[in-house]
Amino acid sequence: MGNCCERAGNFFGPQKNTNVRVSLPAVCFVWQIAMIILFGVFIRYDDESDVRLWIQHKLDHNITSDIENDFYFRYPSFQDVHVMIFVGFGFLMTFLKRYSFGGVGFNFLIAAFGLQWALLMQGWFHSLDLTTGKISIGVESLINADFCCAGSLIAFGALLGKVSPVQLLVVTLFGVTLFAVEEYIILSLLHCRDAGGSMVIHAFGGYYGLAISWVLYRPNLHLSKRLNGSVYHSDVFAMIGTLFLWMFWPSFNSAITDHGDGQHRAAINTYLALASSVLTTVAISSMSQKKGKLDMVHIQNATLAGGVAMGTAAEFMITPYGSLIVGFCTGIISTFGYLFVTPFLERVLKLQDTCGVHNLHAVPGMLGGFIGAIVAAAATEEVYSREGAFVLQCSVTKSENLVINCCFFVLPSFANRSVGTQGGFQAAGTCVSIAFGLVGGAIVGFILRFPIWGDPADDNCYDDEVYWEVPEDEETLPPVLEYNNHMIHKHQDISESNFSVEQS
Amino acid sequence: MGNCCERAGNFFGPQKNTNVRVSLPAVCFVWQIAMIILFGVFIRYDDESDVRLWIQHKLDHNITSDIENDFYFRYPSFQDVHVMIFVGFGFLMTFLKRYSFGGVGFNFLIAAFGLQWALLMQGWFHSLDLTTGKISIGVESLINADFCCAGSLIAFGALLGKVSPVQLLVVTLFGVTLFAVEEYIILSLLHCRDAGGSMVIHAFGGYYGLAISWVLYRPNLHLSKRLNGSVYHSDVFAMIGTLFLWMFWPSFNSAITDHGDGQHRAAINTYLALASSVLTTVAISSMSQKKGKLDMVHIQNATLAGGVAMGTAAEFMITPYGSLIVGFCTGIISTFGYLFVTPFLERVLKLQDTCGVHNLHAVPGMLGGFIGAIVAAAATEEVYSREGAFVLQCSVTKSENLVINCCFFVLPSFANRSVGTQGGFQAAGTCVSIAFGLVGGAIVGFILRFPIWGDPADDNCYDDEVYWEVPEDEETLPPVLEYNNHMIHKHQDISESNFSVEQS
Amino acid sequence: MGNCCERAGNFFGPQKNTNVRVSLPAVCFVWQIAMIILFGVFIRYDDESDVRLWIQHKLDHNITSDIENDFYFRYPSFQDVHVMIFVGFGFLMTFLKRYSFGGVGFNFLIAAFGLQWALLMQGWFHSLDLTTGKISIGVESLINADFCCAGSLIAFGALLGKVSPVQLLVVTLFGVTLFAVEEYIILSLLHCRDAGGSMVIHAFGGYYGLAISWVLYRPNLHLSKRLNGSVYHSDVFAMIGTLFLWMFWPSFNSAITDHGDGQHRAAINTYLALASSVLTTVAISSMSQKKGKLDMVHIQNATLAGGVAMGTAAEFMITPYGSLIVGFCTGIISTFGYLFVTPFLERVLKLQDTCGVHNLHAVPGMLGGFIGAIVAAAATEEVYSREGAFVLQCSVTKSENLVINCCFFVLPSFANRSVGTQGGFQAAGTCVSIAFGLVGGAIVGFILRFPIWGDPADDNCYDDEVYWEVPEDEETLPPVLEYNNHMIHKHQDISESNFSVEQS
Repeated sequence: MGNCCERAGNFFGPQKNTNVRVSLPAVCFVWQIAMIILFGVFIRYDDESDVRLWIQHKLDHNITSDIENDFYFRYPSFQDVHVMIFVGFGFLMTFLKRYSFGGVGFNFLIAAFGLQWALLMQGWFHSLDLTTGKISIGVESLINADFCCAGSLIAFGALLGKVSPVQLLVVTLFGVTLFAVEEYIILSLLHCRDAGGSMVIHAFGGYYGLAISWVLYRPNLHLSKRLNGSVYHSDVFAMIGTLFLWMFWPSFNSAITDHGDGQHRAAINTYLALASSVLTTVAISSMSQKKGKLDMVHIQNATLAGGVAMGTAAEFMITPYGSLIVGFCTGIISTFGYLFVTPFLERVLKLQDTCGVHNLHAVPGMLGGFIGAIVAAAATEEVYSREGAFVLQCSVTKSENLVINCCFFVLPSFANRSVGTQGGFQAAGTCVSIAFGLVGGAIVGFILRFPIWGDPADDNCYDDEVYWEVPEDEETLPPVLEYNNHMIHKHQDISESNFSVEQS
Repeated sequence: MGNCCERAGNFFGPQKNTNVRVSLPAVCFVWQIAMIILFGVFIRYDDESDVRLWIQHKLDHNITSDIENDFYFRYPSFQDVHVMIFVGFGFLMTFLKRYSFGGVGFNFLIAAFGLQWALLMQGWFHSLDLTTGKISIGVESLINADFCCAGSLIAFGALLGKVSPVQLLVVTLFGVTLFAVEEYIILSLLHCRDAGGSMVIHAFGGYYGLAISWVLYRPNLHLSKRLNGSVYHSDVFAMIGTLFLWMFWPSFNSAITDHGDGQHRAAINTYLALASSVLTTVAISSMSQKKGKLDMVHIQNATLAGGVAMGTAAEFMITPYGSLIVGFCTGIISTFGYLFVTPFLERVLKLQDTCGVHNLHAVPGMLGGFIGAIVAAAATEEVYSREGAFVLQCSVTKSENLVINCCFFVLPSFANRSVGTQGGFQAAGTCVSIAFGLVGGAIVGFILRFPIWGDPADDNCYDDEVYWEVPEDEETLPPVLEYNNHMIHKHQDISESNFSVEQS
Repeated sequence: MGNCCERAGNFFGPQKNTNVRVSLPAVCFVWQIAMIILFGVFIRYDDESDVRLWIQHKLDHNITSDIENDFYFRYPSFQDVHVMIFVGFGFLMTFLKRYSFGGVGFNFLIAAFGLQWALLMQGWFHSLDLTTGKISIGVESLINADFCCAGSLIAFGALLGKVSPVQLLVVTLFGVTLFAVEEYIILSLLHCRDAGGSMVIHAFGGYYGLAISWVLYRPNLHLSKRLNGSVYHSDVFAMIGTLFLWMFWPSFNSAITDHGDGQHRAAINTYLALASSVLTTVAISSMSQKKGKLDMVHIQNATLAGGVAMGTAAEFMITPYGSLIVGFCTGIISTFGYLFVTPFLERVLKLQDTCGVHNLHAVPGMLGGFIGAIVAAAATEEVYSREGAFVLQCSVTKSENLVINCCFFVLPSFANRSVGTQGGFQAAGTCVSIAFGLVGGAIVGFILRFPIWGDPADDNCYDDEVYWEVPEDEETLPPVLEYNNHMIHKHQDISESNFSVEQS
């Protein structure tokens, strides 16, 4: 334990300054102003959201009706993803008994900043028009920006309760930047497919958060142990997050897939994998406890593992029963993670992972990447095309993008590769995302160890009192009786006692 | 009371074994593996979600654009229905003070299993291709699977707090099976219309749950009386469920209606009926209490009765004011049910109905079936077609499905019947659904009385402690003071007293 | 303080009759029956939801497919707006420690009544067919009805906890009526554009509520001070409302915009303004408190100001960075409002504004109106059209609505005005909405001062006990221990003490 004390102890004394009255407003203002300037220089409406470009677009593409605007075919998915980012991730992190404000509130803050920065970063890498120097944004950009935030929100899960909001904004700034780079490498250079982001979102975000948390190891975190747990109602709040994530995950994995059968299939596959995860999570959770009692931590988290693991393969022809198998296995693996791996990581690797993102995002995301690799490598023309003749027709017209697109939807990104090669590249992409997460996270972790960020002391973690004006909770004290008027006289002895919240 | 003791007393002793550590994992694993095998044998993507079938489908139907995939016209409705099933039903059942985990968690479990089984059962009855022996699934199948789960979730409402998760999975297995059979009889053999499922979902599900609960009567349930009620915050949680059900009910009743005016009208009619229900529910609730105080039980439930009762008639030309009248009456009937019928059923019929599904689903569902019968019987060609000449044109081309479909949208299922005959068949369908619910529920109830399911003792109902690891709720005890640091010293006398949760 | 006592004191004695057992059911029944009669006389399905009209519509417009029904292009937006009205506004008002039932429940009641009355009022003003004397409704009418309710729900925010449900229904009856009139003046007579309702919804609703609250001033409201605040979990509930409002605000501002680029752009602009609001709200909130702690009141409310302020300008070519600037400024202004203006209003103007609608709706709505005026006045043909030649073509074909519509989307409502004149009219529209709010609110306030409405006494405000059957909250009292069986014996001394909730 010597080196870990060393890791954290050299910077921080026991009494820490958690005052963020200067740093938090300064960061918010400066960064928001920077966003405004950069948006002014770079960001414009795209063909489908600009008045005159849309007129031209309709002329160019022989579109006669405004209802063919892509808005109508992406926006419902966008809103589902949006709910996952803000309500799903936000409420999932309200499970701690006294960190619900921080869970949902900081999630809100960093997603609101992250999506702006993501529009810029992803724009520079993916849609910068080199002639005009401008980035065009539309509804698909908004979905991608929300996706990009998800990486940093996953990292937040590992850090929950142990860092200051300023640190979280730093995590987001670097998280979004790293995300855009690794996404560019994986999707544009390696030509991988990753519609739902098993690799680029979950594996990256999970390992990014774990690496930061490892560097920020707190040897005396047990001093905050009393607050590192849930109460009855905070667990119910967390179920709001779980369910909105679970329900809308089919939209997440299909949101930016190609229109038509691809998007349709991605939703079905994800729906099935998630359903399967629920049953195996319940099974393992029940097996692990005396008398077979279920653990809310598992139900809140491991039930989602099927969605994470289908992120890459959802758009492929993985078959409905293949989806069920993916959910089956990842539900088991994720629950085992909560039971055995998280305690092991904390004890042996000195890795404190508040929400267990290792089990919900890092490992299932990595598995999802490899599942995608296997399914891509197993792709056959019999499955993706109708019959021999049709395949022939496809290969004849290979140079014409449209027809290939029809006959074998993954070919455009497979370029001139065999399916086996593509599988290899998919696996390589997974490794790239993990490497980016680990290395990037370690660097960001060291940055966050400078004693300037206002993070809480080891005995002061998981506590909203540090960064929030918390209402005095009369309700939990006997003087609550005062508004049950009919009782007040019966308990005068108590009202007159030390429980003088009313007077304070 | 003799016979009721007999009904329940012969099997169960006072000390019951609620250990589900073997049975729950076993059922989850075996059934999930069975699902995987059956999906492998039977389930395939349909024309719009399979790569090569979609290409062929576009060629066959002269479709040029991927955005004409039915995904875009069903998926938003699907997601609304999905939210109703998981958040709506789930949170509606969090109202009990110490059964919120069970309410939302078991709802999650049985819906996740039920939808898989429903895809198979409904597939065998409705979309099995006899040539290939395969079932094709697409987004509409997912909606139907969610609908099918709803029947079992309604039954769960009657059983809430009194059964084990293993029993709930059995209820779901049989519930989905019975649902698929009665739906086949009502829709495919009797040619009834039931877009929103007043008959096949609500009347069936309600009576199914009531019959099970009647067989499982617990004579000493009063021993758990202390937990059979809400607390302040659990009532607010339940309102999340109520509101998501209420808001998305127009999507529920229109989700599988024919595209075009039918779907549009179903949403409008349901919206109006629900609004009307709210006002009459408030009126009756207020009238029934001294000083006119409102009862949360009524607001949480009876406000939804208008949606249930519009399930069959929503797609018909019931007129906007007709919809208001339906909501008006069912709001009153449902609230009266909570006030008088539920206590009567418990006292006289020995029927314990935790959520009052009798008043929200069984009776309004039955009424909805009969309202549908009346509206169908009253259908005239003046209403459903434009003018005499046009009607003539319709009858001339009666053999061509498409044109009839235009001129009189209900005709295809009316076959060669008069509207009066159709009305009779609609009424018969309602009776079939009730009969299936009652008989099926009684049989399932007897199966559930074998002493192998791990259900709780009479003095141990409505309690999450039985099947869940419940966090120790420090917050509700004085030691909560410990993190209001400024107070701790004032109350030392208390901290030193018996309230030693911290130490336990 | 003399005049304010006078304002409120002459009607009300200290002991008030809050019994609404006659008045509430009477109002609900009579008004609902009136709705049924008026719907019977006036309301019919429109071209896209009536069987025969839809057939004719398809013939008239050469539509071949049912999926071109406007239902598919408005309904997802409608559902988002619907969620904002019922869950968004409803849960935002659950923040008070003991008024959560009233917050979410009365919101439910008045919206359910308001939307029916809105369909009639807006129908008479906007879509009454003078030949047939009928109003046609479709999905766009439902969105408008929800919008119309929003005005009254905003007013409810100012009155929260201080009025009876009967008074709230009166507020809604007049609020919807006034809304329909001012909307008619602003949109149809002044030809203003106000897609997201900065003027007609937020400025009107905010000032309407403030004027009512001013007239209903309660000099002794400090007697209820103990209940005018939040507890930990009620603040988390309120975040559900905040987040659903925040996430779906892009749908709100784009829901009734013209199809195509307009709707697309409105969503993007609102999304950006909201993101920007979050950062400046956090900054100001942190700056204002010792140690930089955040205040939940600000996070719950001021983060939404960007959406309110973009209500008018969202569909314009305000540019992405323009949207960020709007959110930046209104986040600051709104948070300052909560810090300084609300206390000032209460102290100096004797204006009690429970939710601070002044800072979230009134001022940002007014600003939104003026921002819209400025952006309209700054509209140039270079921005809204492609190039000089195209502009020429536009002006040549000015008489043909379609082409103008293409080249300069705001022209149709600008009529023959210059952009400067249009800007002036937009500003005038804002003033009209404020005037309607203030004058209408004052009149309604005086009506509500008659001593017949059952409103609570000054020492009885913010309390659900007055109008709701509130469950006895065992959970917060020591006897809660009883279901922690293993503890019960340790605390026998306490169980036997005065804390005898069980027995009462």
